[in-house]
Amino acid sequence: MAIVAVSISPTVGTPDEGVSVSRYVARALEVVRAQQAVRYRLDPMFTTLEGDLDEIFALIRRMQEAVFDAGAVRVGTVLKIDDRRDRTVAMEDKVRSVEEQLE
Amino acid sequence: MAIVAVSISPTVGTPDEGVSVSRYVARALEVVRAQQAVRYRLDPMFTTLEGDLDEIFALIRRMQEAVFDAGAVRVGTVLKIDDRRDRTVAMEDKVRSVEEQLE
Amino acid sequence: MAIVAVSISPTVGTPDEGVSVSRYVARALEVVRAQQAVRYRLDPMFTTLEGDLDEIFALIRRMQEAVFDAGAVRVGTVLKIDDRRDRTVAMEDKVRSVEEQLE
Amino acid sequence: MAIVAVSISPTVGTPDEGVSVSRYVARALEVVRAQQAVRYRLDPMFTTLEGDLDEIFALIRRMQEAVFDAGAVRVGTVLKIDDRRDRTVAMEDKVRSVEEQLE
Repeated sequence: MAIVAVSISPTVGTPDEGVSVSRYVARALEVVRAQQAVRYRLDPMFTTLEGDLDEIFALIRRMQEAVFDAGAVRVGTVLKIDDRRDRTVAMEDKVRSVEEQLE
Repeated sequence: MAIVAVSISPTVGTPDEGVSVSRYVARALEVVRAQQAVRYRLDPMFTTLEGDLDEIFALIRRMQEAVFDAGAVRVGTVLKIDDRRDRTVAMEDKVRSVEEQLE
Repeated sequence: MAIVAVSISPTVGTPDEGVSVSRYVARALEVVRAQQAVRYRLDPMFTTLEGDLDEIFALIRRMQEAVFDAGAVRVGTVLKIDDRRDRTVAMEDKVRSVEEQLE
Repeated sequence: MAIVAVSISPTVGTPDEGVSVSRYVARALEVVRAQQAVRYRLDPMFTTLEGDLDEIFALIRRMQEAVFDAGAVRVGTVLKIDDRRDRTVAMEDKVRSVEEQLE
């Protein structure tokens, strides 16, 4: 099981009316919401995904295609992956274990 | 105003008992909680910061030192910065504007 | 065609003698050198890959497994992807086009 | 001493004629070339910087302003920092130590 933060956005020159990227992010997120295999959470700078890494990679490929389908001709993606084999950790556990250390 | 996702963690070889990094993340977060200038939010893969970019950079420097103070001899940090000059956007606005596009 | 910068390294707690990660990076790079579909270049902070995005994703999955096979129980990966559909750009072209603007 | 990979680019909606970002990257790189404190290397996906971390952060702030000065109203920056206190490592050493493991 892996937890992955992903950010996908069109690069300069898209047929866009301003500097908003939310329209493109929403198209990518529709792809995420249409499936069940990978859990997700929408955070300010990244969408956090949790599940089998192969399924997450396949999902990110489809998310990226959705941004191209929305009109982008060039897309920039940033991923940060936490893949561990010792035990299963849910995305909420990561936040909780830090908060417990703080109390 | 900028919104910044930051991840700070010790690299291999720390005097650690396992593969948990939450102890180090908590030390960095204590630095964040002890100040008022920069707003923050703890997400699964990143801590999200919002404020003046110079203040955010100064804060990240202190967060990193806290991880060294906790025993790390080598620290890896990943930042993603969204800096816009057209208008002020809070971190909650970024999530909300995507969610509005989805409805 | 896409150009991808990838960094794969074990997280804290690996059965390691120090803070060096080069042993693990080398194992991942052996996987890259054993194939022909994806071009690569070893840079200081990232390995740069160029090719079809599906083949690059499949390669990164195998690179990550090589780091686990080398003894890591938890692996952190960072990817930055530049995927464009308007024209084919080699990794050397990206450096060259910036250098031409500088002269 | 730290080694930092930095990527700075304008987000959608810039007054630009296409999807090229090399013009903006060149403006940021002019700032780097005009100083001596931080060593640099231009790689395909990132510019690699080596030096004192405070000086690198100050430089990145100036690089980012140069991209705004070139016409961007919103800028996205990605940083990956390797900060170690056990010994000084040059950016070339990181590549060399991996290559030595491969031979």
